[in-house]
Amino acid sequence: MAQLSRSGRFSEEATALLNDFNSSIMFDRELYRYDIQGSIAHAKMLAKTGILTQDEAKSLEIALLTVQNEIENGEFEFKIEDEDIHMAVEKRLIALIGDTGKKLHTARSRNDQVAVDFRLYVQDKTKTLTSLVYTLVESLHSIAKEHKATLLPGMTHLQHAQPISFAYHMLAYASMFSRDHSRLEASFERNNFSPLGCAALAGTPHPINRDVTAATLGFKGPTVNCLDTVSDRDFALEMLFNISMMFVHISRMAEELIIWSSSEFRFVTISDQYSTGSSIMPQKKNPDVAELLRGKTGRVYGNLISLLTVMKALPLAYNKDMQEDKEGVFDSVQTAEISLKILNEMLLTMTVNVERMEAACKIGHLSATDLADYLVERGMPFREAHFVTGKAVALAESEGVDLSELPADKLKALDALIGDDVTAFLNLRNSMNARKSSGGTSEASVQAQLDHFEKWLKSNVIQ
Amino acid sequence: MAQLSRSGRFSEEATALLNDFNSSIMFDRELYRYDIQGSIAHAKMLAKTGILTQDEAKSLEIALLTVQNEIENGEFEFKIEDEDIHMAVEKRLIALIGDTGKKLHTARSRNDQVAVDFRLYVQDKTKTLTSLVYTLVESLHSIAKEHKATLLPGMTHLQHAQPISFAYHMLAYASMFSRDHSRLEASFERNNFSPLGCAALAGTPHPINRDVTAATLGFKGPTVNCLDTVSDRDFALEMLFNISMMFVHISRMAEELIIWSSSEFRFVTISDQYSTGSSIMPQKKNPDVAELLRGKTGRVYGNLISLLTVMKALPLAYNKDMQEDKEGVFDSVQTAEISLKILNEMLLTMTVNVERMEAACKIGHLSATDLADYLVERGMPFREAHFVTGKAVALAESEGVDLSELPADKLKALDALIGDDVTAFLNLRNSMNARKSSGGTSEASVQAQLDHFEKWLKSNVIQ
Amino acid sequence: MAQLSRSGRFSEEATALLNDFNSSIMFDRELYRYDIQGSIAHAKMLAKTGILTQDEAKSLEIALLTVQNEIENGEFEFKIEDEDIHMAVEKRLIALIGDTGKKLHTARSRNDQVAVDFRLYVQDKTKTLTSLVYTLVESLHSIAKEHKATLLPGMTHLQHAQPISFAYHMLAYASMFSRDHSRLEASFERNNFSPLGCAALAGTPHPINRDVTAATLGFKGPTVNCLDTVSDRDFALEMLFNISMMFVHISRMAEELIIWSSSEFRFVTISDQYSTGSSIMPQKKNPDVAELLRGKTGRVYGNLISLLTVMKALPLAYNKDMQEDKEGVFDSVQTAEISLKILNEMLLTMTVNVERMEAACKIGHLSATDLADYLVERGMPFREAHFVTGKAVALAESEGVDLSELPADKLKALDALIGDDVTAFLNLRNSMNARKSSGGTSEASVQAQLDHFEKWLKSNVIQ
Amino acid sequence: MAQLSRSGRFSEEATALLNDFNSSIMFDRELYRYDIQGSIAHAKMLAKTGILTQDEAKSLEIALLTVQNEIENGEFEFKIEDEDIHMAVEKRLIALIGDTGKKLHTARSRNDQVAVDFRLYVQDKTKTLTSLVYTLVESLHSIAKEHKATLLPGMTHLQHAQPISFAYHMLAYASMFSRDHSRLEASFERNNFSPLGCAALAGTPHPINRDVTAATLGFKGPTVNCLDTVSDRDFALEMLFNISMMFVHISRMAEELIIWSSSEFRFVTISDQYSTGSSIMPQKKNPDVAELLRGKTGRVYGNLISLLTVMKALPLAYNKDMQEDKEGVFDSVQTAEISLKILNEMLLTMTVNVERMEAACKIGHLSATDLADYLVERGMPFREAHFVTGKAVALAESEGVDLSELPADKLKALDALIGDDVTAFLNLRNSMNARKSSGGTSEASVQAQLDHFEKWLKSNVIQ
Repeated sequence: MAQLSRSGRFSEEATALLNDFNSSIMFDRELYRYDIQGSIAHAKMLAKTGILTQDEAKSLEIALLTVQNEIENGEFEFKIEDEDIHMAVEKRLIALIGDTGKKLHTARSRNDQVAVDFRLYVQDKTKTLTSLVYTLVESLHSIAKEHKATLLPGMTHLQHAQPISFAYHMLAYASMFSRDHSRLEASFERNNFSPLGCAALAGTPHPINRDVTAATLGFKGPTVNCLDTVSDRDFALEMLFNISMMFVHISRMAEELIIWSSSEFRFVTISDQYSTGSSIMPQKKNPDVAELLRGKTGRVYGNLISLLTVMKALPLAYNKDMQEDKEGVFDSVQTAEISLKILNEMLLTMTVNVERMEAACKIGHLSATDLADYLVERGMPFREAHFVTGKAVALAESEGVDLSELPADKLKALDALIGDDVTAFLNLRNSMNARKSSGGTSEASVQAQLDHFEKWLKSNVIQ
Repeated sequence: MAQLSRSGRFSEEATALLNDFNSSIMFDRELYRYDIQGSIAHAKMLAKTGILTQDEAKSLEIALLTVQNEIENGEFEFKIEDEDIHMAVEKRLIALIGDTGKKLHTARSRNDQVAVDFRLYVQDKTKTLTSLVYTLVESLHSIAKEHKATLLPGMTHLQHAQPISFAYHMLAYASMFSRDHSRLEASFERNNFSPLGCAALAGTPHPINRDVTAATLGFKGPTVNCLDTVSDRDFALEMLFNISMMFVHISRMAEELIIWSSSEFRFVTISDQYSTGSSIMPQKKNPDVAELLRGKTGRVYGNLISLLTVMKALPLAYNKDMQEDKEGVFDSVQTAEISLKILNEMLLTMTVNVERMEAACKIGHLSATDLADYLVERGMPFREAHFVTGKAVALAESEGVDLSELPADKLKALDALIGDDVTAFLNLRNSMNARKSSGGTSEASVQAQLDHFEKWLKSNVIQ
Repeated sequence: MAQLSRSGRFSEEATALLNDFNSSIMFDRELYRYDIQGSIAHAKMLAKTGILTQDEAKSLEIALLTVQNEIENGEFEFKIEDEDIHMAVEKRLIALIGDTGKKLHTARSRNDQVAVDFRLYVQDKTKTLTSLVYTLVESLHSIAKEHKATLLPGMTHLQHAQPISFAYHMLAYASMFSRDHSRLEASFERNNFSPLGCAALAGTPHPINRDVTAATLGFKGPTVNCLDTVSDRDFALEMLFNISMMFVHISRMAEELIIWSSSEFRFVTISDQYSTGSSIMPQKKNPDVAELLRGKTGRVYGNLISLLTVMKALPLAYNKDMQEDKEGVFDSVQTAEISLKILNEMLLTMTVNVERMEAACKIGHLSATDLADYLVERGMPFREAHFVTGKAVALAESEGVDLSELPADKLKALDALIGDDVTAFLNLRNSMNARKSSGGTSEASVQAQLDHFEKWLKSNVIQ
Repeated sequence: MAQLSRSGRFSEEATALLNDFNSSIMFDRELYRYDIQGSIAHAKMLAKTGILTQDEAKSLEIALLTVQNEIENGEFEFKIEDEDIHMAVEKRLIALIGDTGKKLHTARSRNDQVAVDFRLYVQDKTKTLTSLVYTLVESLHSIAKEHKATLLPGMTHLQHAQPISFAYHMLAYASMFSRDHSRLEASFERNNFSPLGCAALAGTPHPINRDVTAATLGFKGPTVNCLDTVSDRDFALEMLFNISMMFVHISRMAEELIIWSSSEFRFVTISDQYSTGSSIMPQKKNPDVAELLRGKTGRVYGNLISLLTVMKALPLAYNKDMQEDKEGVFDSVQTAEISLKILNEMLLTMTVNVERMEAACKIGHLSATDLADYLVERGMPFREAHFVTGKAVALAESEGVDLSELPADKLKALDALIGDDVTAFLNLRNSMNARKSSGGTSEASVQAQLDHFEKWLKSNVIQ
């Protein structure tokens, strides 16, 4: 054996560096509540199965709650040498009640403690986010209710396409966020199994009862295979993906609010609280909050790809790489929590510039499709109707008016199928209300959508 | 207005380039079946609602099936000028039946055609992947059944930790893949709504019936809000994530198979069919297929981040950016399909080197935890037991034997709590079978897991 | 040993699947020219060092050129069984000249062939992209030259901030793309070393001369360590990153073109060639090409993350995972090539709506900062000047005019430091031209920037 | 205008949330030194150009240094209301010296302050990382020097391929890290231009001198175009990519160290300091540090994709999204710093198990290629030689010995070209030393590589 003779050059710095590098306590202390919750469940089960006495379990529970209090009152000192939250809590426990404290670790390993704490956190936060998304859908629904008749130029390619209502636009987002809600709920159910009792990787010879701890902790039951469980991070990846998807939706809404706040659009005015001025340009009112919401998409996508990268090709079971699983999840969860709250308030406090929206509908011949439909209804094949409409639009352009304002006579000259009723038909509000098909923008269709979401809100109400 | 006077310098090349750039037909023709399926459903509905005559609908259906035949027989010429599969099919339709062909586009736009085709594709492939994952779980279950008694050194940190069974290890993967199965099923249900009838973005004034087309196409019903629907790609992102997660699992298994195939391990021998030789080193047998499975993880992660990037901050509704949604999904789906098939066969044809695995269990004092447990059961606090065990391991090291082979006398000298029964207790198979807790590695626990998966297979059986 | 008895269930399909899975020929045939170029260099060196005779080398060269001709004339049949381009070429070589063909593989392995071909490809394409980026900078420079006096509302947060010139805006992009140019050049130099002669992983016992092949192939010299070389993909990752960075810039420009093309902005009109109509809305003119440019960002980011994922934690040296390195690079390179060409032409053919831009400058009190500067110049501390300016803006708002149009009297009433010269000072063109600092938007500063780029173009001219 | 009447429901919480959301001070205070450095340079220039008096500049400098001292002594209170480090420092400045403090903001905006601080940080850290990478190459070089004769089974596909030296393996990593060094240096040069003086987006009317501040701050000169500069984050993205690439290399080395530390390999023993025990399995020694190094790859890839996502499609110039640029860069830089230090020490303190490595070379017939080469040298075409070698390997297998130990007689029976000299030829050390080609594994070739790196170290020495 050839021992490399050079002594490490950074000796003392090294110890500090290594502590920093190995230790997770500076971020995983976020888990303290879940760690104590898991430990109490474990202690109770140990008593129930006779591994500990009832007295020992009681003493453990009291001491654990004491530690929790100390943490919550800021009396607990987190030291980097304690390495992780599990060790920190256990050390304090032993300081408080001596040998009984040591017994808590019976039939348990750090790997399953990590797994339990982190899963309890993710499950808990899944519920929090579910509730925040619910509130957002509720707000969108309430805004939509007031704007069934507010005309807005519906766009594709950021070009005016057809007149729609602002309600209809808001309900598109309600649809997106209701899918986010569904994904969060499904992940909660899929992962609602208890890792506790898995020990290091293979279970334990102690006569534990995993059903008991699972029930105490609110899980449906214990997980099936412990080797899988101690290195399963599917639940964390699902959380990161669910949040990424949510930010697809948030960033789309933020982009629209930013564009709508420009001098050129002015479709909405974000309240002062959610805007900021410039240090050098006093006249500006910047949609900073919307921009930050859009920008935070980068962060949550990054956290997703981080954990996917960490988990790629790791052999079973636990590897220290997995210590990298938490910070990204904490960051995405906190980002999602605050972003959902702020987006919700920003929506509720913004001003909808109804006149600007409606005026904008007169740009771009938004009832062109209606003219085509008018012709089709009167028997013209669609492709031909499309062609005649093109001529009508060109005519309106040359007259300098919107198609909806072109006199019937001029239109009638274009094709024998066009009659006097064309003017009413091309009216913008009429155009919007013509789209009565299921899921469409007419007031009738939108009312049906409002009813749908009202029902959804009732059936998903949070107790 | 200042028209830039320079004429484009690349004129002819430009037209070709632009066609290439704008056109999607070279990849979206993969959707032809779904496009025709959607069109037939649309035609039937148009007849049912009186928008077309029954004769027209019949004529359209026959012609559409003719086009399908032509494509499947290789008689159909895809031209880049047709731009996309929808246009290509429609053009041929008109060539076949003239004006009636043109009527198919009534009450429909390319945006909802795109949405329908792509969703039908994703739903169909979700079913295919669900079935392939099912088969993989079935194979893992059948392999596990034969190896309940096969000892394997269970590892954490790629270090020997505790003796487990090979069955137990295989069932860890069965657990992972059964979660993949659950995710695929949940996505299928969540997205099983029909986009057809959404038109460009706002619905249509034609008296269509979206319930009818939804039912014809096998959807639960129509989507709620059309503005959302024409630019919703959640279903595609879910597919990309579900496949990425699946490749977390596939890559972990591949990594293990590669390590297990090394000269140093030799725990398994991958069949010749799934290995290859070297062009320059005749003695080598490389686990190429496992390496490719691991490597393909990059591709599916990349496809996920691609579409997340595309969708970030897009204003409603359809934007041409979304044309970038398909290639990545096609690529991930094809990769998943072939990878699941190949992994399944590779597992079924590999040789499990039982003797090597069992011999390896004698390296690393795998029953150290058992000694600690032995002491704890006899009343020693865990942390002390851990310490005594450390001394026993050091003793075994100095004697040059595995802890399981250290004579009882030597062990007894370490602590008064140690008795003659310690030898049987430290036997490796005994050690494995001691872990009888739920989800553990004992034969009894593994049998319970096998029963669980047998039940799972029955209740998820594919008709 | 427990051979799993089940015979594979998919037998014939399996062979086809495995061929597909293992084979790279369907994409790596893109490398044929580089493969042949590398082989000719190798053959010549083998002759020069006496390993082959001059006749053999000549015969190999002629045959290799024959194969190249066959491929370029479409006479070469690529078969999936040939697995990769190297094998396909070699097989044909042997068919053409028999045993001499077999000798080409002397002192060479497939691993270094792969490494050589791929590096030649990347180096070649780096040059192509460098040249396309050069052309783009040239076009931006020429557009800027015409628009030094064209006013545009400079924006931050998509809010009007200060009047700038359109030239200035174009030169911001020239700056970005000139950095892309610099990155491409640096990568070319850093990676311009020849892998040829590395053999499988350890070099070769044959008396080859790597300096000779390096020189023949246009490299600066051979790489330093062969173990590194056969599994080095840094050059490919640099390419993927350089293209991703380029798409940060392309997507920003595309976003601006899209916003500028909206009805609300109309700052530019993209030429018909680079826009498309809607199938259902005849009046629309969509900036599809700009949207696709923006959307393709997803693809190139995805390709980068794919290869980063593949390369993570691969042990030395070659692993089959690395076969996944090429498709993403090919895709990003092709995407970049076509995108740069199209962006260039789109810019050269778009109409700059000068009047619209200038009119927009009168919205938002763009000379507010000038008023603050005016006050500071006259001795007021900046923070106070900022405050007074705020009052002036409020006054203009209440009068319904832009700050630049507010009569001097009204302004003078606000603070004693304000004099009659304030009106000229707040004129928008004056405001723009006041920013004379280096890198600023004044015509003088912009002229200096134009000179800078003129010099840059000259010193980077492509022969 | 339809003001939404609902009052925000979370009022007080809202203010706190918004402060949190908008504020960057909790992370950007990391920039304090650079902020003060930039401000001093700005003040000096303002004096030089007569915008401030020399006294004012002197007073500003002293006060700024006072603030720096306060921060470094922990006397400075960071408040979330101060929003960012720039505001925090400025406020304190004004508290210290009143109106003169306010004058510092003359001819400067927060946007260019952000740009200056962040660029100074990145440039400074680029130098730090360059130096740490240099040290790592130095260590690899010193380890390699001691192991030119240490045999190691060179692997491809994690299968034994050819005997190489441990020195050769270490120098492969020296090659990789020297490329990382080159990338860091190139990025430093490319981005070494001063943003200071760009103001909000368009330059400033004040007669500033950007050459002066650039020189004071150690930049080559000012940037070319301010609109570009205030929203340029190329330098940050380059840093994130350079670190990601570095982690491709670090993760590969970490993976090898982990595999080499397994019971089955035992090629190296990581020192106790860089390993940890298990809480439940006393016999284990886990390569935690190497695993963390591998795991941290996820984090740095994630940070790269985050900022790429943020920057995608942002219109010019500054948008608040960009506030999301810093945390990821700070995190990647800190991760790289500590990881490089720790990897370096871990390498210098690990034990190289020379006997295990050499013994492993006798598994897998590593001299098979040599036999093929032997035959080729004697005139056999390579493909045939490959075939004969295959038979020899089969023979060795059946005899249960390594090819290098097969008696000459048995080999001679296989082909007439084989002579008595074959035994010496197939000796493993001979096999290694036969690979004398440039970049190969022979001791002679490795010496040339050592010389190369010695020269490299000298020419890149850090003063």
